[in-house]
Amino acid sequence: MTISIAHLGPAGTYAETAAVAFSQKLSQLGQKSFLCPYPSIAQTLWAVSQEQVNLAVVPVENSIEGSVTITLDTLWQLDILEIQTALVLPISHGLISLASSFEEIKTVYSHPQALAQCQGWLEKFLPQVQQIPANSTTEALEHLETDRSAAAIASQRAAELYQLPVLAYPINDYPDNCTRFWVLKQGGQEIENSALKLIINTINQPENSVFTSLGFTVPANVPGGLVKPLQVFAKREINMSRIESRPTKLSLGDYLFFIDIEANSNDNYVKAAIEEFKTYTKILKIFGSYSVMPINLGSRE
Amino acid sequence: MTISIAHLGPAGTYAETAAVAFSQKLSQLGQKSFLCPYPSIAQTLWAVSQEQVNLAVVPVENSIEGSVTITLDTLWQLDILEIQTALVLPISHGLISLASSFEEIKTVYSHPQALAQCQGWLEKFLPQVQQIPANSTTEALEHLETDRSAAAIASQRAAELYQLPVLAYPINDYPDNCTRFWVLKQGGQEIENSALKLIINTINQPENSVFTSLGFTVPANVPGGLVKPLQVFAKREINMSRIESRPTKLSLGDYLFFIDIEANSNDNYVKAAIEEFKTYTKILKIFGSYSVMPINLGSRE
Repeated sequence: MTISIAHLGPAGTYAETAAVAFSQKLSQLGQKSFLCPYPSIAQTLWAVSQEQVNLAVVPVENSIEGSVTITLDTLWQLDILEIQTALVLPISHGLISLASSFEEIKTVYSHPQALAQCQGWLEKFLPQVQQIPANSTTEALEHLETDRSAAAIASQRAAELYQLPVLAYPINDYPDNCTRFWVLKQGGQEIENSALKLIINTINQPENSVFTSLGFTVPANVPGGLVKPLQVFAKREINMSRIESRPTKLSLGDYLFFIDIEANSNDNYVKAAIEEFKTYTKILKIFGSYSVMPINLGSRE
Repeated sequence: MTISIAHLGPAGTYAETAAVAFSQKLSQLGQKSFLCPYPSIAQTLWAVSQEQVNLAVVPVENSIEGSVTITLDTLWQLDILEIQTALVLPISHGLISLASSFEEIKTVYSHPQALAQCQGWLEKFLPQVQQIPANSTTEALEHLETDRSAAAIASQRAAELYQLPVLAYPINDYPDNCTRFWVLKQGGQEIENSALKLIINTINQPENSVFTSLGFTVPANVPGGLVKPLQVFAKREINMSRIESRPTKLSLGDYLFFIDIEANSNDNYVKAAIEEFKTYTKILKIFGSYSVMPINLGSRE
């Protein structure tokens, strides 16, 4: 079986770079795969939930801009996806343009997160330039061919793919900029493909830390409503590496929570902790246990 | 003294509507004020930190889309602002266009949060239309005059201000959509203007709940590192009404936290709790104690 992998397209987005790295890892392990670009993150997740594809690669959080909220909201809504592994991709933006100098540039297009990550650089080198948001870093490139006074912020890979010149690189304000992605499949069923199962177990190397991601709601407006469930892990010395709150969309001040714990939900000790945790929650969803595969761009290209 | 109030402009944004409502409240209490629009939320906050204005009105969170992260990040960075009161504004979007029918519309512009809040409606009534992000709901209106095939998502107030027709209203997917704003001044000093002090005390009515907003970091990767400080409030039956995590921007997995507790930091009981809380944190910033003023649009206009 060839494995299909959905990601936010078009080619040249950071999500595609992460999907390519995952696909190459599969290939090294003897498993063929191909990429399926989708126009939004939500559609990428719907595609795997409706079995149009086998896997989806979606961004979860960036080290500068924080959570990708559409990923969390859609995961909670769809209710049937399971995280297989996490990927961490270093992010380095370039200024891409057909202009012959900075003076010629009047507008700069990019995804709002990429614009936000280069504010300091833009204020220093292009203070008068108008910043215009785009749906993806790749979509920003569409403006360049017809307008020499336009620039885009995107990856070097995107510049290469579309054969456009990079005027400045890197231009992100914080050097330690990276994005964490999740690779997801449909949950609630065994992986049919035994090669994929083996490969995911190989990627989730036993020497790596294992994380379990949970989503939950707690009884409203009870003092300690959130603290009581979290104590269940704290008293067992299980580290919570992340907490994120999202609105339930029902009323202002009504939240659901996403946490990552450094533990494997398949261990009996952790199973017992999760059972106790459940007694303090209203709704609990377990999104899977997995480890993290760093993507080394240097060795890939 | 006339009070100057900074907000995200241009006229017609939801931030301006909140600032107008606050300004009218001041006027009812005999205090004159005027509005100062700024091109971004960050610049709105910088303006008050640099004493260009007396107050700033900025959005904090929306009931559907969650936190306004630029507000939290800038507040943490500036370190010297104090929350005076919170405002809650009901949000209702309209589809604004010079097109004579839906069939004529090819593109729809708006702020990404407004686009996100109308996805269901757009998929139902304008499924083929291209969605283009803009810096504000008001900026989206700029495209309409020159292009009859363009539409924008913005408030009815914005449509009135710019004398543009509303084709459909309301078009938000969730009826209970509202945004919470903070009114901030420079902290660390008494309010010089005694009228303003009196007015803020009048707005923060004693019969209302009082909230205190805190920002903090905890020792990294310690099991229970976040739970221990939160227990301080839980064991005293002080309700935590909100928690939000943000990246420190130093490395992936390194967070700072924002919490709201339902308590007044001027009460001795709460002061003692905060002192104990402090022992479990690395950095602690207290952003103020305040209550919430709902904005009733019906009575305003």
